[in-house]
Amino acid sequence: MGARVRAIDTDAHHQLRGIADLKPYLSRHDWQRLEEFGMPRNSNLYQASGGFRGARADCFGAGDDVDPRSRIALFQEKLLDGCGVDFAILQGEYTPAVLALADLDFSAALCRATNDWTLAEWVGRDPRFRLALTVPIQDPVLAVREIERLGDHPAVVAVYAVCGSPRLYGQRHYDPVFAACVKHGLALALHFSNEGIGMNPAPTAGGHPSYYAEQYLVRPQFYQAHLSSFLFEGTFEKFPQLRVAFLESGFGWVPAFRWRADATWRSLRAQTPWVKRPPSEYMREHIRFATQPFEDPEPAGALTAVLDGMDAEQTLMFSSDFPHWDFDPPDAIVRRLPESLRQRVLVETALETYPKLPR
Amino acid sequence: MGARVRAIDTDAHHQLRGIADLKPYLSRHDWQRLEEFGMPRNSNLYQASGGFRGARADCFGAGDDVDPRSRIALFQEKLLDGCGVDFAILQGEYTPAVLALADLDFSAALCRATNDWTLAEWVGRDPRFRLALTVPIQDPVLAVREIERLGDHPAVVAVYAVCGSPRLYGQRHYDPVFAACVKHGLALALHFSNEGIGMNPAPTAGGHPSYYAEQYLVRPQFYQAHLSSFLFEGTFEKFPQLRVAFLESGFGWVPAFRWRADATWRSLRAQTPWVKRPPSEYMREHIRFATQPFEDPEPAGALTAVLDGMDAEQTLMFSSDFPHWDFDPPDAIVRRLPESLRQRVLVETALETYPKLPR
Repeated sequence: MGARVRAIDTDAHHQLRGIADLKPYLSRHDWQRLEEFGMPRNSNLYQASGGFRGARADCFGAGDDVDPRSRIALFQEKLLDGCGVDFAILQGEYTPAVLALADLDFSAALCRATNDWTLAEWVGRDPRFRLALTVPIQDPVLAVREIERLGDHPAVVAVYAVCGSPRLYGQRHYDPVFAACVKHGLALALHFSNEGIGMNPAPTAGGHPSYYAEQYLVRPQFYQAHLSSFLFEGTFEKFPQLRVAFLESGFGWVPAFRWRADATWRSLRAQTPWVKRPPSEYMREHIRFATQPFEDPEPAGALTAVLDGMDAEQTLMFSSDFPHWDFDPPDAIVRRLPESLRQRVLVETALETYPKLPR
Repeated sequence: MGARVRAIDTDAHHQLRGIADLKPYLSRHDWQRLEEFGMPRNSNLYQASGGFRGARADCFGAGDDVDPRSRIALFQEKLLDGCGVDFAILQGEYTPAVLALADLDFSAALCRATNDWTLAEWVGRDPRFRLALTVPIQDPVLAVREIERLGDHPAVVAVYAVCGSPRLYGQRHYDPVFAACVKHGLALALHFSNEGIGMNPAPTAGGHPSYYAEQYLVRPQFYQAHLSSFLFEGTFEKFPQLRVAFLESGFGWVPAFRWRADATWRSLRAQTPWVKRPPSEYMREHIRFATQPFEDPEPAGALTAVLDGMDAEQTLMFSSDFPHWDFDPPDAIVRRLPESLRQRVLVETALETYPKLPR
């Protein structure tokens, strides 16, 4: 299985050259609105460090004024050809803010245009790209409509969700979205970056962090909140085929979270009797963690305990986060992993998580 | 040092018999308001399991209709005498909601009354009780006024803060409170339980969890957000004598958080140049973790790695959470710890954290 595939990148970020890229895919009404008011923006809080707009410094030629994430040739040269990545799943750079809009019809229009543009201009120009479908997940009716429209496209392998959300994703409000994911063989791909903007609550129980480093440090908690919700709402009892990819969540926290989750379940399971098994079992079967940014536990040897404590053989899969400043190429990951995990992490676990990837 | 002290309990929770307990300590105006509108309540979301109002089932006699947490004799019998606890630091059961009030003057009045009542009716009746001062921390002027009023009382050993907060505690808004803590030799005692109520933001970036088990599971993130803020705002550079006690935060998460914090600092320290040392060093010197609920990592042996990875010899101290359902007596903790840590955890680290405790 996947013997000829060298690496699957579960998290790369493409970008518009400008809003005009979307014009062919929008109604006249929605285009006028976008042109007049501009694209909603991800919070400045989340602007990355280490280079122009958070991308790798080596992505820019002298005098460039185009966002390098909009250049397909850059992805081909530096990621696909340069790193030996055979498939790269795209999660759009600007879309988190689109999913934080309170105007769900406008959000849906921008999602549709994003998907159509990506399929035409990225997947259509290089068959190594795959797409996590952007859907207005806060309105499950519209979200399901978009999944029905494009979920059977061969390049669509997942539905994209972002951690900032008025409601936690385990809540039954979202069940129709997950039913549609399962129906079309799509994973759910969860990524941070719209927490505390638009209609979303503050990033933490204590409000908004001041600095990017703080947001970077507490990022795992955005995922943990939704994970806790999936576990105790019984999402995986309802959708036993659903797989959720945690992208850029880190994974050093997973063993301690599992201990606490199992202990909590043992103490309080009487209140949620529909949760039939220890949370760690649902996590092992349903939650997948992407490698980037790869965490280096201390002291040496601690990485082994983390990999064991998260069942990494089943749950860890490669991501590059190309072209962000904290990008990890496959070589950098492979060096840190025991031989027995390398093919699992680079290829096989992704194939199991995204059943529509070719094998 | 502390040779004759058997155990110091850093987290016990006392309660009013009823609001009339506060009447002698309130102005006529504030008493009328309290009588007419009632005491603000901690969220139902946080109601504990396992017994009436979350307290141990063995605290109740047949037909009792008084909250057992209001009975000083119960604390004396079951905690102080029964468990060999020589000092117990009280954090009031009902006060988190008081600190979530948007009306900061009324909050301040209830804080003052709480402190006066505790000193008279608890500390005044048993000298083994100590008090974490309840202050309206969201208004630093009023908070400092209360610290100046009572901070030199010999039984006052800390200032109490709760994780739900419109602003993260590292932000300079709170600096006067920490300056007053240091001036009076008081630790800051941080406890969860008013997240998402009153003027406080939602408990998570995805809103409100549905179930108590979820809140229990994600509780560490309330503390992590404030910890991240302390670290990157430079709180401990400004207040090198400040110690912060994390009460009921759990501690299994600490090693992985430290790895991530140090890695984040190495990548992004240029943006926060006032943070001079790796975050793990500030944590070792300034953050203390209370034992309850004691986490049992899996597999066997993992506890040793956690204790090493958090520098438990310097950072871990005993708490019982009496009289809650998930109460831990000192014996239960001692059994799980290596011999070398027992006296540190039961007595010595608390003496270092709360300099006003007698030695």
